[in-house]
Amino acid sequence: MRAVVIDGRGTFRLAERADPAVGPGLVAVRVHAAGLNAADLQQARGDYPAPPGWPADIPGLEIAGEVEEVGAGVTDVRAGDRVMALVGGGGHAEKIAVPAELLLPIPVGLSWREAAGFPEAFSTAWDALVVQAGVRAGDRVLVTGAAGGVGTAMVQVATASGARVVASVRRTALHNRVRELAPAGGGVDVVSPGQEGERAPYDLIVELVGGEDCLRRVELLRTRGKILVVGVQGGAVAPLRMVDLMLARAQLIGTTIRGRSPAEKALLAATVRTGVVPLLADGRLRVPLDAAFPLDRYADAYARLAGPGKFGKVVMLP
Amino acid sequence: MRAVVIDGRGTFRLAERADPAVGPGLVAVRVHAAGLNAADLQQARGDYPAPPGWPADIPGLEIAGEVEEVGAGVTDVRAGDRVMALVGGGGHAEKIAVPAELLLPIPVGLSWREAAGFPEAFSTAWDALVVQAGVRAGDRVLVTGAAGGVGTAMVQVATASGARVVASVRRTALHNRVRELAPAGGGVDVVSPGQEGERAPYDLIVELVGGEDCLRRVELLRTRGKILVVGVQGGAVAPLRMVDLMLARAQLIGTTIRGRSPAEKALLAATVRTGVVPLLADGRLRVPLDAAFPLDRYADAYARLAGPGKFGKVVMLP
Repeated sequence: MRAVVIDGRGTFRLAERADPAVGPGLVAVRVHAAGLNAADLQQARGDYPAPPGWPADIPGLEIAGEVEEVGAGVTDVRAGDRVMALVGGGGHAEKIAVPAELLLPIPVGLSWREAAGFPEAFSTAWDALVVQAGVRAGDRVLVTGAAGGVGTAMVQVATASGARVVASVRRTALHNRVRELAPAGGGVDVVSPGQEGERAPYDLIVELVGGEDCLRRVELLRTRGKILVVGVQGGAVAPLRMVDLMLARAQLIGTTIRGRSPAEKALLAATVRTGVVPLLADGRLRVPLDAAFPLDRYADAYARLAGPGKFGKVVMLP
Repeated sequence: MRAVVIDGRGTFRLAERADPAVGPGLVAVRVHAAGLNAADLQQARGDYPAPPGWPADIPGLEIAGEVEEVGAGVTDVRAGDRVMALVGGGGHAEKIAVPAELLLPIPVGLSWREAAGFPEAFSTAWDALVVQAGVRAGDRVLVTGAAGGVGTAMVQVATASGARVVASVRRTALHNRVRELAPAGGGVDVVSPGQEGERAPYDLIVELVGGEDCLRRVELLRTRGKILVVGVQGGAVAPLRMVDLMLARAQLIGTTIRGRSPAEKALLAATVRTGVVPLLADGRLRVPLDAAFPLDRYADAYARLAGPGKFGKVVMLP
């Protein structure tokens, strides 16, 4: 099979690799589309190694494709099934072996490329908002960096949970597209960075950007409010005014899926399968797509991922 | 009645004041002993105003004494009852009016001065460890600043909850006294600041000191561990490495009792009455006393409070 491989600090090339072996509990998937994520670039720079058990040098954290072969003990899926999954690496290739318990069914009518953009962003959003923070109908939720892949998923999952969402988006050209993420008549209130305070207080702030000033937003929280720290590409260290945290009796919750054990990832996939995939199937959630590239245009795909002004997911089509 | 009053920035004097009025729901208490807290000094400096409904210029956040008179509608206590309470201010006086729902019964055999040192430290410890953080038997808990009033309470409440406690204490002369807070055979492991990492990882870190480096301790947490930020006198702003928080899926929880609503304070008193006072009554918790001063030696009392090397509570005896 062909795969994108990391061959040095920050550089990729296309290579021929052996097809993955289909051991017990594993499923071989013919990849039709695979999502790109910032973590792919971090991994290429050597900052973010793949977890054990996954290809160490093939990027790609989410895939959509067709089951080709199932390993011993796999009974839930069979050859020909359309599946998608959040994986630990190896997605930017023609084939991948995935533990069966991580597979999600692709709803009828969803394209490969939409399905490829679903697992990472929506698993992250559901886990953070619903599982970790316990978002509730009526909560006021601020999402920073709301135009990105995870951001658009957060806005939709929060809205679907009945929260009133304020989305902070840097590029004003994207404000309307983020506003349109809400169902007709629903209310995503879009602001520019720096204006978030005008809509305070919040029950929950989802931090997807990071940077020096991001923890100042503790002062925008309601009593017992929470900040979920999910993305910090804009700066990973920030001063915290601990007295603000104390007076608000607030919580800062860090979360990431990458470092979890296989059992925890299987548990998350199970909750996504029962809680989130049905919302995707009935059209309450959708996957905004920014651009799609064939596998041999991997360099253009990663450049698009790293560049500004995206709205939604960048995907590769092996 | 006589009371200590704040008459300028950081200074106190003794003054004659009218006895407090005993309105509906209130109870007049003849104060026999009152605890001192760092917040008294912060209040005197103007940094920490008393909450509404409490004397604005009389310090003192916890009292023990005898009920003199009850207001309309009070049925749970009567004249002569021995009571203690966490109050919003006004404790460093001969008399105080306290909402009946804040009163705790003083166990038989406990002295006035021990009772006066109980409410603030043990309500704070119980609320933080049990209510906010949900400490469980078997948890590894680090308490910084463990020799102070709140620190000794945290060590005891954590130990009584079945946790394995590591206490960080700056003055080595106090290490043995902190070690002896555990029941015979129990395990409080006492270390000096900087050595906490040798006992890592922790499920829970109780921060009672603060300072520039305190949030680096996120790296000492177990996965899904928590830091409770309860005291930050050593420095209220610290940098947080958000990636550490994310990878550990850790939580930072700020908490303080001061700013809570009267209803929340009554709720806390009710949980302390049923959960903590029985542990004090049966000797599983005790109140270490550092020093006691008559009311007219208020200046010596506050100086002792502000000075180094204390072990346990400083109290005043009006």
